[in-house]
Amino acid sequence: MEQPFAEYLDDFTRRDWQTLDPEDVSAPVRIAVVGLGWFAREWALPGIARSAFTDATVVTDVDAEAVETVAAERDVHGVSPEELRAGSVADEYDAVYVATPNATHLEYVTAAAEQGKAVLCEKPLEATLDRARRLVSACRDAGVPLMVGYRMQTDPAVRRLRDLVRAGVAGDVIHVHATMSQTMLGELGSDHDQWRLDAQLSGGSAVMDLGVYPLNTIRFVLGTDPVRVSGRTRTEHEAFADVDEHAMYRLEFPGGVDAMCTVSQNAQHASRLEITGTDARLILDPAFYEREDRGFALDRGGTRIDVDFEQVHQLEEEFAYFGHQLLAEEPFSPDGDHALTDMEALDGIYESAETREPVALSGELPD
Amino acid sequence: MEQPFAEYLDDFTRRDWQTLDPEDVSAPVRIAVVGLGWFAREWALPGIARSAFTDATVVTDVDAEAVETVAAERDVHGVSPEELRAGSVADEYDAVYVATPNATHLEYVTAAAEQGKAVLCEKPLEATLDRARRLVSACRDAGVPLMVGYRMQTDPAVRRLRDLVRAGVAGDVIHVHATMSQTMLGELGSDHDQWRLDAQLSGGSAVMDLGVYPLNTIRFVLGTDPVRVSGRTRTEHEAFADVDEHAMYRLEFPGGVDAMCTVSQNAQHASRLEITGTDARLILDPAFYEREDRGFALDRGGTRIDVDFEQVHQLEEEFAYFGHQLLAEEPFSPDGDHALTDMEALDGIYESAETREPVALSGELPD
Repeated sequence: MEQPFAEYLDDFTRRDWQTLDPEDVSAPVRIAVVGLGWFAREWALPGIARSAFTDATVVTDVDAEAVETVAAERDVHGVSPEELRAGSVADEYDAVYVATPNATHLEYVTAAAEQGKAVLCEKPLEATLDRARRLVSACRDAGVPLMVGYRMQTDPAVRRLRDLVRAGVAGDVIHVHATMSQTMLGELGSDHDQWRLDAQLSGGSAVMDLGVYPLNTIRFVLGTDPVRVSGRTRTEHEAFADVDEHAMYRLEFPGGVDAMCTVSQNAQHASRLEITGTDARLILDPAFYEREDRGFALDRGGTRIDVDFEQVHQLEEEFAYFGHQLLAEEPFSPDGDHALTDMEALDGIYESAETREPVALSGELPD
Repeated sequence: MEQPFAEYLDDFTRRDWQTLDPEDVSAPVRIAVVGLGWFAREWALPGIARSAFTDATVVTDVDAEAVETVAAERDVHGVSPEELRAGSVADEYDAVYVATPNATHLEYVTAAAEQGKAVLCEKPLEATLDRARRLVSACRDAGVPLMVGYRMQTDPAVRRLRDLVRAGVAGDVIHVHATMSQTMLGELGSDHDQWRLDAQLSGGSAVMDLGVYPLNTIRFVLGTDPVRVSGRTRTEHEAFADVDEHAMYRLEFPGGVDAMCTVSQNAQHASRLEITGTDARLILDPAFYEREDRGFALDRGGTRIDVDFEQVHQLEEEFAYFGHQLLAEEPFSPDGDHALTDMEALDGIYESAETREPVALSGELPD
């Protein structure tokens, strides 16, 4: 760290991407929210409202009752999915946020792209790698900017962790552990989100729904992409008959760095990322859930520094970044191509679970 | 836990294996210590002295100067390795503790067995699986009892962790993470222990020297043995040209439970075991080094219990158990066969690192 330590602390939650002054923004980006599951209602809509760079103006969902409720609650225009896709109210929004079941991202993103709207699509990008590629192509062909909803990447704790790793504080990274689990059946608020147990709609469960967090966060913090993956999935509880209930996967990064990851939809809550380097160990625990207070620890030569800080609203940060980049006419950092790398890795993990063989990803292979 | 919680705490460091009263022991087991590296001098000899059931009476090493120094310091009989193997002073000891380089365990254990002495051999049992099998056979053929020096198994924190897991406090175990690393080059006290960098003498480094701890401790706590292993090793620093500097391995237990392990001889200190089950998460951190204060945490539904306790001397516990079982004429729990299972797994991890394929171990395979 070049800067003095005290200044580093003052600056901890800074938005290192922000160049516009919110006070100068007269017209925030108007967002149509597609999909009103618990995450959109509990986290995304509040995040959009808190962010100075965004406003929700339109909402839609296949559940007409949810549309009516949210439209009234938030004083926004509720429309049907057909109306949204047809562009009936396209003059009421500048961008579309897609938070529907994974396998329906493509249709909504394609419609938004054809309307010339900027897109923020939830991760994982789609239910299959092929459909994810078509989604990215649709945006590219239409010339609309596509951001993918990796909320960890705009979280200050994660950004500072990345800063430390990239500044060499950990030395050479030797290995990484990550674990993320929850008791999903107990936490599913309503039947509305049961699509997560339907392989056709979700593309998978433990790996797709949880695995994407350790995978993407490790990529982001290390600043590099895996060259080989292996994995194994298993299911015991009947609710997961169609999908993977538990999974482990290993990511092999250039230089031979291994990340050992476990995820489960039916285990006691765990949420931890741990990076061991030659010079220090960096621990983010809790790590991955939007509702958790994040902070990290740096352990070096027996001295441990715990960094706690005033917590941000993760979705406010994500939507502020989305709106800011559009207003500033700057590109998105977690874009479609970035998300396709995750989709290739997730696809490789499932393939490895079938074949019991490691799967090489595009990119250079180490010996 | 059947017993009331307060009693559980009072009982935390109890020796659940102890039936003899130390005050009734008039003649402790007399031990010949073979190999006077830093571990024997700093930990084993003090442990033997502290334990009420053991006394060191003879010491030997290939380093005559070390023998002379330790013999004077501890007022014991120093002999040459040749004298020890020849049984010249066999009437001065009842048991032999072997803490020499891995590849020399066989010769000393065989000599002790031929003298009819009980053996406590350090782990890993030998440098190769084949030699380890011969070592176990030598003791079996001679009818002498063989214990293997898994100091974690007589540590109260580890025993209580096992009690909790076996009592079902974690529910079904879903997955396990373990990591153990050190900056070995900085921590090697003297050239005396440089055999750890010599593949012929050690059989390997990160996996053999460190990997055996997570492997054996997980086996002990779960009460089950891996059915399949995979692993990868790598070396960067020239000091490790002959051996594995870093390694990761995965242990697959019956029922599909995966343990994700990383070890390194050249990374920042790490020492952690984490078990995630359907009902609770159990965390032993720090876990594996003899010099660490152990304790564990139990995390369940957002409530975390940290168990700290008056620390024991790990080697006192180990030698007390060794001496006690001999005096009580009870069998050893970490015996030769138990250690051979580790040797098969370690061998399988190295094989997998070569072939890039998982290696099935003896025992039933899942699906």
